[in-house]
Amino acid sequence: MAAHGPAAPLDTLRGRTYSVIFGHEKGWGRHFDAILIVFILGSVAVVMLDSVSGIRSAYRDELVALEWAFTILFTIEYVTRIWCVRPVRAYALSFFGVVDLLSILPTFLRVIRVFRVFKLARFLGEASVLAAALRNARYKISVFLVTVVCIVICVGSVMYLVEGPAAGFTSIPQGVYWAIVTLTTVGYGDLAPITSLGKALASFVMILGYGIIAVPTGIVTAEIAQLPTGRTPLARACPSCEHIEIDADARFCRFCGGEMPPPRS
Amino acid sequence: MAAHGPAAPLDTLRGRTYSVIFGHEKGWGRHFDAILIVFILGSVAVVMLDSVSGIRSAYRDELVALEWAFTILFTIEYVTRIWCVRPVRAYALSFFGVVDLLSILPTFLRVIRVFRVFKLARFLGEASVLAAALRNARYKISVFLVTVVCIVICVGSVMYLVEGPAAGFTSIPQGVYWAIVTLTTVGYGDLAPITSLGKALASFVMILGYGIIAVPTGIVTAEIAQLPTGRTPLARACPSCEHIEIDADARFCRFCGGEMPPPRS
Amino acid sequence: MAAHGPAAPLDTLRGRTYSVIFGHEKGWGRHFDAILIVFILGSVAVVMLDSVSGIRSAYRDELVALEWAFTILFTIEYVTRIWCVRPVRAYALSFFGVVDLLSILPTFLRVIRVFRVFKLARFLGEASVLAAALRNARYKISVFLVTVVCIVICVGSVMYLVEGPAAGFTSIPQGVYWAIVTLTTVGYGDLAPITSLGKALASFVMILGYGIIAVPTGIVTAEIAQLPTGRTPLARACPSCEHIEIDADARFCRFCGGEMPPPRS
Amino acid sequence: MAAHGPAAPLDTLRGRTYSVIFGHEKGWGRHFDAILIVFILGSVAVVMLDSVSGIRSAYRDELVALEWAFTILFTIEYVTRIWCVRPVRAYALSFFGVVDLLSILPTFLRVIRVFRVFKLARFLGEASVLAAALRNARYKISVFLVTVVCIVICVGSVMYLVEGPAAGFTSIPQGVYWAIVTLTTVGYGDLAPITSLGKALASFVMILGYGIIAVPTGIVTAEIAQLPTGRTPLARACPSCEHIEIDADARFCRFCGGEMPPPRS
Repeated sequence: MAAHGPAAPLDTLRGRTYSVIFGHEKGWGRHFDAILIVFILGSVAVVMLDSVSGIRSAYRDELVALEWAFTILFTIEYVTRIWCVRPVRAYALSFFGVVDLLSILPTFLRVIRVFRVFKLARFLGEASVLAAALRNARYKISVFLVTVVCIVICVGSVMYLVEGPAAGFTSIPQGVYWAIVTLTTVGYGDLAPITSLGKALASFVMILGYGIIAVPTGIVTAEIAQLPTGRTPLARACPSCEHIEIDADARFCRFCGGEMPPPRS
Repeated sequence: MAAHGPAAPLDTLRGRTYSVIFGHEKGWGRHFDAILIVFILGSVAVVMLDSVSGIRSAYRDELVALEWAFTILFTIEYVTRIWCVRPVRAYALSFFGVVDLLSILPTFLRVIRVFRVFKLARFLGEASVLAAALRNARYKISVFLVTVVCIVICVGSVMYLVEGPAAGFTSIPQGVYWAIVTLTTVGYGDLAPITSLGKALASFVMILGYGIIAVPTGIVTAEIAQLPTGRTPLARACPSCEHIEIDADARFCRFCGGEMPPPRS
Repeated sequence: MAAHGPAAPLDTLRGRTYSVIFGHEKGWGRHFDAILIVFILGSVAVVMLDSVSGIRSAYRDELVALEWAFTILFTIEYVTRIWCVRPVRAYALSFFGVVDLLSILPTFLRVIRVFRVFKLARFLGEASVLAAALRNARYKISVFLVTVVCIVICVGSVMYLVEGPAAGFTSIPQGVYWAIVTLTTVGYGDLAPITSLGKALASFVMILGYGIIAVPTGIVTAEIAQLPTGRTPLARACPSCEHIEIDADARFCRFCGGEMPPPRS
Repeated sequence: MAAHGPAAPLDTLRGRTYSVIFGHEKGWGRHFDAILIVFILGSVAVVMLDSVSGIRSAYRDELVALEWAFTILFTIEYVTRIWCVRPVRAYALSFFGVVDLLSILPTFLRVIRVFRVFKLARFLGEASVLAAALRNARYKISVFLVTVVCIVICVGSVMYLVEGPAAGFTSIPQGVYWAIVTLTTVGYGDLAPITSLGKALASFVMILGYGIIAVPTGIVTAEIAQLPTGRTPLARACPSCEHIEIDADARFCRFCGGEMPPPRS
């Protein structure tokens, strides 16, 4: 994951700065994380409040000031990260490097700044074994998604034929949109069948959706059931094939046979 | 859980009263529980009926009389509990102590009295191992919730940009509300995308929601699958780390190594 | 389950009739079952078509004739069942005895005849181990249902206070109805929050519902996962405590220790 | 599955063509598959765009030209398949043979050409063990479906009686449609109860639906949990009873005892 390291030995200023702003466990690193989380949440709240017209007109100056303050702080954070990490490229092109950069650029739309919330992902990623369960199941999930796409295209086309423009099914993509809204059981009701045949077909699709909703649940449950319950252990990724291993005793990858890194203590 | 005990030996009046109103298994304790459940349900029904304007105008006097009767009964119950429990503080500050008190206070809004329904929780809490399964999974669930919050904030912002006020997306919080309604598959239809781009994005979010709904199900299922099937056994909480142990043979907590209380027979 | 038997030895007419109309495996019993299923479905279809006003006015005579034919056939079936079963009381008071009787009575509302569809349950009940899984989980499910009832009452009351009659929340029962529609992710949209506070509360309830939907799924999955996969085996109910045993080798009930009936071969 | 083979030895032109267009693993076979997938997706996109009236009027000529190109290409593909496969009947009457034919026929409705998306299924079917899990659970799923059909018929009839035409419940089939929309938690809101009794009944049905949604999830999860996690292995179908075996070491079917084909390496 972390393909970069400190720019200097840990006992220099740059080394210590690296361990504070990239590390999560040490004393100062924890304080830095807590402060950063508060700033991220505050910054996202400002963008959200700024979009409510009543609040924007009443507190325009305060919101602009806060926005500038957050932008300056995140700029300092970004420059410091660049300063103490090596190779710079590895960080700058990583997911978090791009997110950190976008957070401070004078973006063409101020609203996009709400994506700063992705900076929070840094504090989830490390410990989460949920992502591991999903990644191990990625093959089954993609088979499932292709199946769903085939179903919604066919169902949407048939509904377009059956109902026609009178019920709002003005084109096949519109029918596909209806099929997705129905199959996922969202059911807005902005499009709904009117004819008896359409209703019968919709009933069939809904009961089908009932069965289909079971498949991803089954896939994810089967993967999560493999994880130990209670406290979450530290997962390790195989360096060769990216299989996630959660058995702390495993020394070799069970799929490619490659050597695993030692578990973190 | 129960950090309080009887105020006097069990063969005195106060001791016997304690075992009747706090116990669930003995003869009189069971009768007391049954009567209390009836009173709670009756009291909640009165508050609910009182809110229906047709019924309130027709039966005003009867409803007021019943309300007074229930308030007096619950006051007697509360005073008796205080009288026979020691230390009083442990009960008065517990969840049920607060609920019992709120049930009798001349609350600023009469409607709040419907919260008396929480008094029912007393009859669930002891035996429920479902809560144990949820508590053991609390770390995974909170990781999941943070992820969902990040997703709905980003999706809501993008929809605010794409659809704009014409479709009712008047602010980012409004967009976030739409994202939650959609991702949880509730789908009221009070807000729905109008433009083609918005519908395409909504379709993507719905299929995403399909996968996401699988994650909490997987987490909870994996925990519940650990519980023995059929009759529910008695769970024990580790006194040190609050891990819930359901293996009757376990003598030590499997996480902190602390000694477990003996299983109830 | 079947607490009744043939009225006479199996080599007499009454005994043979019993094995044909109550049995499911023998040659004539299978034919009888198939014919009965066709009649039940036809009868239910007639009632449903009769409710569509266009069809009723066009085919009034045919529908009445068919209805009379089905009623006579089901009367013959009921009389024959009474004739060849002993004790009569055990059958007449059983679930299917009551359903069979209701199917032929000149019911006060003709529409109720659609309940004849319950006669189909006879062909499911014997083999279904799904019911067994649900029955074994009945304790956990009822705890869950009481929890849900408490939640919807509280949430409904708070929404009644927050939104008030302007948004359609005219009484607490109305609020409870909204809470059920939302928590189960049905989301009709006939009632939806209008104020910001109401929307925030609704968002919270929806994410809560997300987690809650996982609980029954977890309970049922854990029970079904106990069942052998592939072909469904024959389940046996313990005569004393009604626990469903699916292990064919079990000779004693694992809960009450009572002797189990031998497995059907 | 594949009940047909090459029309000639693999070192002749016809044999090599067979392995390219029916095989998935060899070099040219992979390229052919990739090109075919692009053509299928392009062809489906053309049909979908053609249904949007704005696009059809603006790009009529281009769409017609593309449609003709795809039809010619799929005709060449179909003729080549017929030429190099033996027995022709086995392919022509198989699912994919029919789909391939329908893709090129001057269909009575051009919209039906969107069913070309089924040609994609060819690239899913071989590897998918998800279908195996669903097939093994087919008995339990059909029991479940019959139960759901019985429930929606009864609930729909009762709602027709309770609500009547005023709320849009103009016939029993309409009520059944509402019951399906509600029980599957889709909840369009085009039909919703108005009377108090109807709302109470609907609340009951929704909470019931809550429990019912758990059953197919439980069934599918239990089957999928049997599959190995991570990479998906190759499943084998028993030639006699169609049971899907995923244990690579199994030499005999565990249900009918018939010999299993050797696992593909």
